[in-house]
Amino acid sequence: MTNLHEIAKQMITQIISDNMPYKSVENALKNYDFQGRKIYIVAIGKAAWTMTKAASDFLGDKIEKGIVITKYGHSQGEITRMAIYEAGHPILDENTISATEAALTLVENLGEGDTVLFLVSGGGSALFESPQEGVNLADLANLTNNLLASGADITEINMVRKRLSKVKAGRFAQTCSPANVFAIVLSDVLGDRLDSIASGPAAPDQSTSADALRIVEKYNLKLSHYQLKLLRQETPKSIDNVKTEITGSVRSLCESAAACAKSMGFTPYILTASLNCEAAEAGRFLGAIARDTQKGLSHFRKPCAIILGGETVVHIKGNGKGGRNQELALSAAMGISGFENTVIFSLGSDGTDGPTDAAGGLVDGNTVSKLTSKGLSIDQILANNDSYNGLKAVDGLIITGPTGTNVNDVMVALCL
Amino acid sequence: MTNLHEIAKQMITQIISDNMPYKSVENALKNYDFQGRKIYIVAIGKAAWTMTKAASDFLGDKIEKGIVITKYGHSQGEITRMAIYEAGHPILDENTISATEAALTLVENLGEGDTVLFLVSGGGSALFESPQEGVNLADLANLTNNLLASGADITEINMVRKRLSKVKAGRFAQTCSPANVFAIVLSDVLGDRLDSIASGPAAPDQSTSADALRIVEKYNLKLSHYQLKLLRQETPKSIDNVKTEITGSVRSLCESAAACAKSMGFTPYILTASLNCEAAEAGRFLGAIARDTQKGLSHFRKPCAIILGGETVVHIKGNGKGGRNQELALSAAMGISGFENTVIFSLGSDGTDGPTDAAGGLVDGNTVSKLTSKGLSIDQILANNDSYNGLKAVDGLIITGPTGTNVNDVMVALCL
Repeated sequence: MTNLHEIAKQMITQIISDNMPYKSVENALKNYDFQGRKIYIVAIGKAAWTMTKAASDFLGDKIEKGIVITKYGHSQGEITRMAIYEAGHPILDENTISATEAALTLVENLGEGDTVLFLVSGGGSALFESPQEGVNLADLANLTNNLLASGADITEINMVRKRLSKVKAGRFAQTCSPANVFAIVLSDVLGDRLDSIASGPAAPDQSTSADALRIVEKYNLKLSHYQLKLLRQETPKSIDNVKTEITGSVRSLCESAAACAKSMGFTPYILTASLNCEAAEAGRFLGAIARDTQKGLSHFRKPCAIILGGETVVHIKGNGKGGRNQELALSAAMGISGFENTVIFSLGSDGTDGPTDAAGGLVDGNTVSKLTSKGLSIDQILANNDSYNGLKAVDGLIITGPTGTNVNDVMVALCL
Repeated sequence: MTNLHEIAKQMITQIISDNMPYKSVENALKNYDFQGRKIYIVAIGKAAWTMTKAASDFLGDKIEKGIVITKYGHSQGEITRMAIYEAGHPILDENTISATEAALTLVENLGEGDTVLFLVSGGGSALFESPQEGVNLADLANLTNNLLASGADITEINMVRKRLSKVKAGRFAQTCSPANVFAIVLSDVLGDRLDSIASGPAAPDQSTSADALRIVEKYNLKLSHYQLKLLRQETPKSIDNVKTEITGSVRSLCESAAACAKSMGFTPYILTASLNCEAAEAGRFLGAIARDTQKGLSHFRKPCAIILGGETVVHIKGNGKGGRNQELALSAAMGISGFENTVIFSLGSDGTDGPTDAAGGLVDGNTVSKLTSKGLSIDQILANNDSYNGLKAVDGLIITGPTGTNVNDVMVALCL
């Protein structure tokens, strides 16, 4: 089993390394002609620092200046000509707004001879925000909380929220005009919808005022007349000063896992790159597949790696500590309990799964018995959403630190 | 799409037909030597009638007499020398108890020269029950309801419940002694654990008093002192008058689906035969796999049939009408919405999914839009556990009537 753990750890290192945005930003820049324009950088999201570093190394003094806005702890140091801001994620804070204001100040007076190199990664919805005049941070927080409490999903929340923003739903690109915008986007949204990634600051909005008002009605939200007026203002439906390149996605995460597995002698089987169900239930499902693969009852032939990509969800019921990848792995442990030569891991490519310092979880056929011997039960741990402490007790946490990339999650069952 | 619907329907017919217990009971009897003993039949479960018919046709007047206990509507007519009882399922009722008492009366005075041919199929937990002295039907019902409401799973519920029973956990076989028992078992329990199928009336119990008491504590159940005393009585851990033959299982259900798919030109991929997660989440998972298969992003190559077997669960939150197979299918419809040439079905082999007259659900890429045009949303339907009416609105119910077999469920995604 130790050997399989080592293999899993090597895979994790390789998968993250393959999916760092540095090289893909470089490639995107190689293929773009700035036509001698002055270059200003605005970089947002959890991978903002790495993306900016790549651009800075490649473009050097062709860059005038720029602004980087990333999550606390995600900056890896100074970058020439860049002002680096750290701010709150997933809950935005005053630093988000002051950093975003600085970015707006930078771009609002640019001319036709300028280009904004806009580097976008996941986390950008929270990390890039300046409310419209007359709306404040508390208003946004209240709106979000009320929508969450009503059971609205993230798409619905963003559909309303972006209309109260100066930067989302294409408005940042409007502010940049007449300058051109070249957006390099590292996708953390399943299906890569540009108006969803970071709420689409440089993308035409596919939702309408009518959609937003319908959500207000659906959840019976109390908004001020002024806020309703903002919701009625239509967002840009076409934007002509932006060129966008998507450089990474969960598909490449799965493909890296597959290539890495293959190089180590495991037949790779990718089942999906858009898994979006409840984390713990996905774990049960994957556990059942791995178990039946060990028993020779599935299509998959050992040695093999069964690979899933996506972004599962956790409906929180308890008050423990954890994240979707940790819940998935822990839940999968039940399915493979007692089986030798089976390891399952679930990894958040950004290195920070939920509000924890773990990137995910790694379990094997002994995880359940180890937990039992410590008086712990997976059902109880999951009922309290305490996967972090459950995995910690059996040395099952994957710790990478913030990785500098953010392209969703990958789950792998290794059967030897 | 119509064509694919026809193919799915043919598959459903074929899968059920392949898994009828008639032939397998006959084969089991051919290989068993009754050594001239008198034969008494006790048949329990949803497939009791079909199994008894096979035995009666094969053994003829070697049978002295017998008792058949099946679910309401599952008897298909008289069988020579048999007393046929119908009773409540999944909620047992007074008929269950009077039928079970009749079976106990039949077997309790048998001698060494007699054999009880015990035909067991799924549903037996509810259909074969006589509470211990001092416990009544209401006590059992309360216990079950409290456990269900606490979120206990079926294994846990049975572990407690069988200790209040005169027939479960090996006690029926004890009552038959000194007669021999030949048990032919049609398995509806994942992993075919004999002490779990119909709560194991003729199998040594693998769970202990301590296990049962732990569940009482876990869910903070209020039991009387007398009931707790019954829980503390240990169940038989070895039984020497029983020979058991398992004749069917969810594996054969998956294999039938695979063979049938292959004969129709679809490459079959069995992922697992022991799926046990939440039904709606399994649907999302399968929907994601089918979607990515259509997009060419999964390992599976079209035309193909992605096959799962098992028994998912539903944690009921609403007051609608439905069953686990119907929830799974409806939920899967979200994942394949808009995709042509994709059909997903989930089928309960017994023909009665939950407390409904449907065997399961069948959906395609148009299911979501059809529901939307009727003002229905799958999220809302599932929140109310109303999958039956949701599917009914879009002609998505699979109606077979009681099939005469019961070997769990099979789910198939057909991608053309």
